[in-house]
Amino acid sequence: MTFGINETHDINLKSWVESANDPNTDFPIQNLPFCVFCRKETIEDNRVGVIIGDFVLDLFPCYESSLFDDADEYLIPSLADDESLEQGIMHRNKGVHLLRKKLMKVFSIDAEPKFRKIAERNLISISEVDFWKPVESRDYTDFYCSIFHATNVGAMFRPDNPLLPNYKYVPIGYHGRASSIVISGTDVKRPKGQNRTDADAPPVYIPAKNLDYEMEVGFFVGKGNQMGETIPIENAEEHIFGLCLVNDWSARDIQAWEYQPLGPFLAKNFATTISPFVVTMEALAPFRTNAFERDADDPQPLPYLNGEQNQQFGGFDIKLEVYIQTEKMRAENIEPFMISRSNMKDLYWTIGQMLTHHASKGCNLQTGDLMATGTVSGREKHERGCLLEMTWRGKEPIELPNGEQRRFLEDGDEIIMKGYCEREGFRRIGFGECRGMILPAD
Amino acid sequence: MTFGINETHDINLKSWVESANDPNTDFPIQNLPFCVFCRKETIEDNRVGVIIGDFVLDLFPCYESSLFDDADEYLIPSLADDESLEQGIMHRNKGVHLLRKKLMKVFSIDAEPKFRKIAERNLISISEVDFWKPVESRDYTDFYCSIFHATNVGAMFRPDNPLLPNYKYVPIGYHGRASSIVISGTDVKRPKGQNRTDADAPPVYIPAKNLDYEMEVGFFVGKGNQMGETIPIENAEEHIFGLCLVNDWSARDIQAWEYQPLGPFLAKNFATTISPFVVTMEALAPFRTNAFERDADDPQPLPYLNGEQNQQFGGFDIKLEVYIQTEKMRAENIEPFMISRSNMKDLYWTIGQMLTHHASKGCNLQTGDLMATGTVSGREKHERGCLLEMTWRGKEPIELPNGEQRRFLEDGDEIIMKGYCEREGFRRIGFGECRGMILPAD
Repeated sequence: MTFGINETHDINLKSWVESANDPNTDFPIQNLPFCVFCRKETIEDNRVGVIIGDFVLDLFPCYESSLFDDADEYLIPSLADDESLEQGIMHRNKGVHLLRKKLMKVFSIDAEPKFRKIAERNLISISEVDFWKPVESRDYTDFYCSIFHATNVGAMFRPDNPLLPNYKYVPIGYHGRASSIVISGTDVKRPKGQNRTDADAPPVYIPAKNLDYEMEVGFFVGKGNQMGETIPIENAEEHIFGLCLVNDWSARDIQAWEYQPLGPFLAKNFATTISPFVVTMEALAPFRTNAFERDADDPQPLPYLNGEQNQQFGGFDIKLEVYIQTEKMRAENIEPFMISRSNMKDLYWTIGQMLTHHASKGCNLQTGDLMATGTVSGREKHERGCLLEMTWRGKEPIELPNGEQRRFLEDGDEIIMKGYCEREGFRRIGFGECRGMILPAD
Repeated sequence: MTFGINETHDINLKSWVESANDPNTDFPIQNLPFCVFCRKETIEDNRVGVIIGDFVLDLFPCYESSLFDDADEYLIPSLADDESLEQGIMHRNKGVHLLRKKLMKVFSIDAEPKFRKIAERNLISISEVDFWKPVESRDYTDFYCSIFHATNVGAMFRPDNPLLPNYKYVPIGYHGRASSIVISGTDVKRPKGQNRTDADAPPVYIPAKNLDYEMEVGFFVGKGNQMGETIPIENAEEHIFGLCLVNDWSARDIQAWEYQPLGPFLAKNFATTISPFVVTMEALAPFRTNAFERDADDPQPLPYLNGEQNQQFGGFDIKLEVYIQTEKMRAENIEPFMISRSNMKDLYWTIGQMLTHHASKGCNLQTGDLMATGTVSGREKHERGCLLEMTWRGKEPIELPNGEQRRFLEDGDEIIMKGYCEREGFRRIGFGECRGMILPAD
């Protein structure tokens, strides 16, 4: 689980890409997340890239210039004709490890000049490109793995029975809509839907009133499994390629009316925003934690979800922050305001358990599938990962620095999510941003 | 809505393909469903075909032989390099209509000899081919649109409140798992999962005990919509390419334990079986019915779900039959035994309403997406579309002709679903079969 820390997380390793040496960058030489991009205002095909400092490295021309000749048994010609990470990268676990090591050599301050030259030729400033979804996920699954979130939400709807009896046994999840996953920066139109907040009148089809974000972490399936086969908890992480940030936009008024008995549907499927950079499991190795520490009277996970490695290293210490900038704040030049911070290590279930559970009845996972953790909330009020919890269903509005209040999102509000890892003795590893602004309904 | 009846449903139209003139065939010249196939025991690429009688017509070589020269502005070169219906056919509504008319001329007993010759060269006996999924659906949505099914199931779990208050307003649906859709004939392994039928003990991870089928009808999205755009009810059917049969296998014991609060997940995603032939909306035109007649005190659909055409012609008179053949019956040479028959016209919501509702918050539908109606049950006991209802959760086992009983499915049971339309003055239009056999758990 901690494989690779020594080799690729040396804090003293510097790069000739100077912005990568900035202690505040999300993207030092120890990170190197993957992405898909194209140059702004061109009609060229999408390209697979790697982020370092303020730049993206265009991988395919590097490959054509023989940069990866010593690694190509695992890699790529598939990079050549592929516009997403799916074929070229995600399903080649070992290849990615080697590619990462190779790129660290190439970007190192001690790089061989011929390699450095190839890389320099193919570095593009992040400001000159647009990012796209790293992969067209064919299936998307959303979990519900923060016990604090589940308990808070449960308390609002079922005060006497906030946490359902299955919660501590089952990593609760549901299938989401893959087609409406969008990349950070995409505007989100306020959806219309059936609202029945007035229980004495019939429902009405109107713009959603209680629009919300959910701060989540996503993970991409690397290697899949055959239908009918399961994935033992010990092997779960071999099937996970990397992580990103997810905003699972939610229309709470529609959700409350539609969700019984089969779960959320239109309340979620109008848009789900992801950050563009896939941070690899290798890059996150120094930030692994033990699985959630259960209360003494909590049941242990059933054996198929209980593995020694998972218990010791299954968690991630990833700090998550949510910022809001309203239309008025933008007009007044007020910076985005942080409304919550939480941490992925507080999830009740690990992503390994989510993945193993997903395949435990033989469901076939496929390279590029996206899974998300569900809202990451912590114990404290400032750690609540959505407005539903934060304002307690609108009863306790939050105050913004310019005097505005928010119960739920208003038109023109932009939500910005950030995620990063910090630990003494290691470089900061970040996720970049996951942004989205609410546009008015038609 | 009834467009095309006169042109393409003349009962007197005969074909030179004699098996198409058999009054019992599912596939007369008036049907012509699309499919994807390849010859058995070859490694050739999948091909797009059209079924007539006992044969499949291989479309691409017909195209190469200029069979469609007079129609090619709408069609095909995309048939050339495509192995599914998605690009070549589904998204070209008008093209499909013209292709259908063209093929009727080609197969007609009065066909021009040069066309007939081309077709004859490219007809392959159904017994010589394997069928594949007509399209790799990127998203799959399952609805819950039989009020009889919803009321029965509700009565078992909430005797005092069987039908939830949203049911008559919202075409209830949830996202399913696209990756585990399989084609008719694929064996289905009994899945393992968390079972908590003993409420006094912790759950156990064991093979599902209460395995069930659900008799549903599926429909494929032809033309999609942009994210954020809705689809007015008047235009809904322009976005539907055709229909198939669906068996939404369900593990009831797992479902009962896992489904709250976010709906069914692993209880459904181990497998969903579809029939291989996509019967077009044009072929079904004579069998349209009015939408479900609501009780006088039922609410009318909200305006966005209420269209005149939908009310007059939104339903389908499709007879649905479920057969079982157990291992013992096979050994004793006992034919599959019909355990239920129901009719799609008994659905509370039309497929147009399902589709319009799905897009009503701006969710983008994509060509090839599969939607299913949910279990099609009728008023009567013999019209219940799953064993859960039929045996009232196992309390009233069904009797099979050889003395066996069934509460739920056992290993070796094969479920065979059939669907067909019959109406005085028209040829029978059928769907073929949707089969699947249960294999033991690992």
